[in-house]
Amino acid sequence: MHEMLSKLESSEPLKGMSVSQLETLAVEIRDVLCNLLATRTAHFASNLGVVELCLALHSVFDFKKDRLIWDTGHQIYPHKLITGRYHEFKTIRERGGLMGYPNPAESEYDLFMTGHAGCSVSTAVGLKSGDDLMGQPSRRSVAVIGDGAFPSGIVFEAMNNAGELNSDMIVVLNDNKMSICPRVGAVANYLDRLRTNPFYTGLKSEVQKVLGKLPVFGDPTERMLAQIKEAVKAGMVGGMMFEEFGFRYIGPIDGHDIQLVRKYLEMVKNQKGPTLLHVVTEKGRGYKPAEKDPVYFHTPPAFEEDEEGCPRPLGTSEKPAFTNYARDAILSQMNRNDKVTVMTAAMCQGNKLEPVRDAHSQRFFDVGICESHAVAFAAGHAKVGLRPIVAIYSTFLQRSYDQIFQEVALQNLPVTFMLDRAGLTGPDGPTHHGLFDIGYMRVFPNIVMMAPGDATEVEPMLEFALSHPGPTSIRYPKTTAQTFPRPAQPIALGKSETLRWGNDGAIIAIGAMLQQALAAADLLKQEGLDVAVINARFIKPLDIEMLSRVFEECRFVVTVEEGALMGGFGSAVLEAACQHGWDTRIMRTLGIPDQFIEHGDRNELMAEMGLDPTGIAKTCRSLSERFSDANHAGV
Amino acid sequence: MHEMLSKLESSEPLKGMSVSQLETLAVEIRDVLCNLLATRTAHFASNLGVVELCLALHSVFDFKKDRLIWDTGHQIYPHKLITGRYHEFKTIRERGGLMGYPNPAESEYDLFMTGHAGCSVSTAVGLKSGDDLMGQPSRRSVAVIGDGAFPSGIVFEAMNNAGELNSDMIVVLNDNKMSICPRVGAVANYLDRLRTNPFYTGLKSEVQKVLGKLPVFGDPTERMLAQIKEAVKAGMVGGMMFEEFGFRYIGPIDGHDIQLVRKYLEMVKNQKGPTLLHVVTEKGRGYKPAEKDPVYFHTPPAFEEDEEGCPRPLGTSEKPAFTNYARDAILSQMNRNDKVTVMTAAMCQGNKLEPVRDAHSQRFFDVGICESHAVAFAAGHAKVGLRPIVAIYSTFLQRSYDQIFQEVALQNLPVTFMLDRAGLTGPDGPTHHGLFDIGYMRVFPNIVMMAPGDATEVEPMLEFALSHPGPTSIRYPKTTAQTFPRPAQPIALGKSETLRWGNDGAIIAIGAMLQQALAAADLLKQEGLDVAVINARFIKPLDIEMLSRVFEECRFVVTVEEGALMGGFGSAVLEAACQHGWDTRIMRTLGIPDQFIEHGDRNELMAEMGLDPTGIAKTCRSLSERFSDANHAGV
Repeated sequence: MHEMLSKLESSEPLKGMSVSQLETLAVEIRDVLCNLLATRTAHFASNLGVVELCLALHSVFDFKKDRLIWDTGHQIYPHKLITGRYHEFKTIRERGGLMGYPNPAESEYDLFMTGHAGCSVSTAVGLKSGDDLMGQPSRRSVAVIGDGAFPSGIVFEAMNNAGELNSDMIVVLNDNKMSICPRVGAVANYLDRLRTNPFYTGLKSEVQKVLGKLPVFGDPTERMLAQIKEAVKAGMVGGMMFEEFGFRYIGPIDGHDIQLVRKYLEMVKNQKGPTLLHVVTEKGRGYKPAEKDPVYFHTPPAFEEDEEGCPRPLGTSEKPAFTNYARDAILSQMNRNDKVTVMTAAMCQGNKLEPVRDAHSQRFFDVGICESHAVAFAAGHAKVGLRPIVAIYSTFLQRSYDQIFQEVALQNLPVTFMLDRAGLTGPDGPTHHGLFDIGYMRVFPNIVMMAPGDATEVEPMLEFALSHPGPTSIRYPKTTAQTFPRPAQPIALGKSETLRWGNDGAIIAIGAMLQQALAAADLLKQEGLDVAVINARFIKPLDIEMLSRVFEECRFVVTVEEGALMGGFGSAVLEAACQHGWDTRIMRTLGIPDQFIEHGDRNELMAEMGLDPTGIAKTCRSLSERFSDANHAGV
Repeated sequence: MHEMLSKLESSEPLKGMSVSQLETLAVEIRDVLCNLLATRTAHFASNLGVVELCLALHSVFDFKKDRLIWDTGHQIYPHKLITGRYHEFKTIRERGGLMGYPNPAESEYDLFMTGHAGCSVSTAVGLKSGDDLMGQPSRRSVAVIGDGAFPSGIVFEAMNNAGELNSDMIVVLNDNKMSICPRVGAVANYLDRLRTNPFYTGLKSEVQKVLGKLPVFGDPTERMLAQIKEAVKAGMVGGMMFEEFGFRYIGPIDGHDIQLVRKYLEMVKNQKGPTLLHVVTEKGRGYKPAEKDPVYFHTPPAFEEDEEGCPRPLGTSEKPAFTNYARDAILSQMNRNDKVTVMTAAMCQGNKLEPVRDAHSQRFFDVGICESHAVAFAAGHAKVGLRPIVAIYSTFLQRSYDQIFQEVALQNLPVTFMLDRAGLTGPDGPTHHGLFDIGYMRVFPNIVMMAPGDATEVEPMLEFALSHPGPTSIRYPKTTAQTFPRPAQPIALGKSETLRWGNDGAIIAIGAMLQQALAAADLLKQEGLDVAVINARFIKPLDIEMLSRVFEECRFVVTVEEGALMGGFGSAVLEAACQHGWDTRIMRTLGIPDQFIEHGDRNELMAEMGLDPTGIAKTCRSLSERFSDANHAGV
């Protein structure tokens, strides 16, 4: 069916191929991508956009020797298809199958497992510098980075260094005018101006017209310089931003013209010093609906085409996710309180914040993939009396760790962090799981940390956070949010909620693990074990009164969290126990063990780590058998 | 003595002052600064450099209303002197006295407590945006940032956003050609080119000469554009890098000419949109030895002048610090192994790495204040088979948190982190204490974490790290390193060292706290208590065999660490105890409580937190009384 692709064991044969052969390959790749999308949620539009670029790169370089880093990495599919992974490709994003991101364990063509944006230039500079020191200066180094990732601070840090080192490396700026959502920021505007470069638009005569207007002799120098400056700013002399970092700028060129891209890559291949090749591509290229709506088609759900050829999502609709409840809570709080502002780092879509953006555009700030700035910017808002909400995924918030420390916690400013994807994210895998935030945030003084046990707690927690006079965080996983009907208990600082009491033992759940805890208690009930289920609500400060009662009255205590055990919620409970002299021999902590967790179905992964109802019940059962009476004689 | 300064209760009167009055103030400020330096270690050269700039700023703006952020903050002294803190100034950097950095608790003129570089532009953009939303658009927002801090990634993230928002704010780029050490990087080279701007150098005729050579009519457009580009790059049209971010660039101007700076500040004060004013100053200005050697005079020790008027450090010379041993170990390893490379983020001086830089310049990389890049760059080195050492202070390494995660731990690459200043840093205070690294690093899988107990362990640990096939870290505090004579025990993965055994109890110390632990055990010995002292060596993985013995044989266990208790070393021991079913009721954890710790003498601060020998002994004594027999009947 895919005659060329199916025979391709590596990308080496591409070097001998004609442009029309490569174009045939491109057709086959697009066919594979479109077929895949009928079967599962996957990254789509970005992959359709880099097909030609990927083929051109592999036909000019030898990436068994040369170094290629795809920034962020979700546009890796064509690369995987032509580097010997065609036959496994149908397993992508499945448990045990190919990762949806680069993975060194899969192929020597994948150098770094990536998923967070912006580091490709740094690693490419490092690889080049390292190869030179290792006596292999002929190995070339290429970073392919999208215009969405480009404004990340680390890119400028890397260019600053590459310019200084005069590193022989190539940055391919893949400009599709998009982050996941349309890109924002001054750099984006700058790239727009570059696209109007007369060399790109073909309007060379325009250049002469503008230049013709420049007075050269007799006029005051200042005026002349000002006009030259304007001319430069008008995009006539492209890429000064990069040139000033010591890069040679070339472009922009059409990234879907394989012959052209190949020609330019051949040209820059042996260039001395750092080069930036500006390539213009179209997200979703080759699939009309995706070209029209690249935001929806960034990671669309599995779909089929209807009679009209329009995509229709497959599968039943699920209950709303925590993300939806968080969005609704933010919207509702903004409606009621005009001091509330929201920051997103290009994740308006991921956080489903479009309605917030549309309803309160003046108080909604998408700063681009610039998490560090987002947090420091929010601190500025908090300082003047606003109530900023920083909505960033748990794992991406790591990028602003020092600003959480200095600009927020140290100043004790009332910034509220909404940590979506705090837990196992399923098919995205280790770069996207949000497993470390409890540990990394808990170390900072002043921060109050919460996690809602079900859907009903999201807005009350946010409301509490927005009235608290210091920094707060609310974490919730990528999953549908349950509702456990019960009498409302208002959120109070450091207070847990006891859903049921039982003297045999206690399960203390933080966040959405409440569901599994309740189900485990139900299982145990059938065996005659009366186990308390506590919704901890707060990670920091802890509910010492509740803990004291549990350690006094229950035969065993199990903490359950969807986060790393190292330094996690369970550890916080252990710290409290040590401080208060409670016996921790009756306690077990359940959570994510000290290893990176692969991609796969969230429920499957949880079950494997003993975090499903059966696993939790099993831990409880074994503790119950061990500590068979209340005074812990079994120890 | 300081007639004007001593009467200044706020900076308001500056608005009515003449230039010559301000110049007199400048003389008084310099006098105060020079006198201070005779009494203590303090930031010096950077403060001498901004005297006029500071006076001009306060004479043009009203910073009770307008917003002023001094980036990094160590150049805050003149600002403190003119905002009502002259009479307390002699207490600066002393316990209970003024901070050496901005401190909102001291004055309404200080908005953010800062100490880490680069965030000023972000907070200034946030403050401006916030003031606008709060209906106070007349409040102006100014960030003063040095050229050393400027290449930090977050600055570009902030400019990207400010350009997009078209924020009415001012960035004053204080260009003194220095970080702490001479600045590096492409941006630095670019600033150098700006200084050759003919408007700055006064060589306007040069402009005309160059322009005169530009062919305008009849030549191919490409050639013409190339030449214009070269002319722009030659610095003739200044500040394109900033203009392309949407900033209006003005400068460079002489930052020691109060009248001139004032004039330009008045000019940009009501400018619409973001403006960057490039001001050239001289670090150490007004004190000849500091002008000549601004690196030494960044934070010189207290000194007096000899007969020749040359500075001579006061005080007795101390034993070498951990920093010295770390430097020697790095140098020795680099001498023996040509695969070893070193990265510093503008802290060559702080880490005393000059001899390393001079001996191995090809393998030494100062990337500027760009910690994120430093780590990702190092990952590139590790990937190709080198053994990179990233030498960054504990607190500044927070700036590369996401790269530690993605580029190092996730890839399991052998990067070695040398975390200097891991502990209380004394007079620098909360922005510089390195208290969180144990907690923030421990959460990531794959990382092996160590801390040397004394001077003799620094190099063996580094040697071990450099042979370990994965990421490693070595933390050590800002203090002199002791040597405890004893038979050498080689460093082995996850193995502690028992310095003395005793069945009454055990003190498990990590890192330099070994000294206090040994002294505490000596005190207890005098009372007849036989307390084991264990040098943990490893934070991760822990020595389970040792812990098992201690929990079995000792009546009590005390862990001691110079780091935050939340998620710290003690918590790691608690996690192990819970997992193995050891009784933690006999255990106490000593370390830094959950609050930000002020500046002050390290020993004093330690004593206050019970981390001195007396405090540790006291904890042991109380545990010993409570658990008076071995089977814990006292519980």
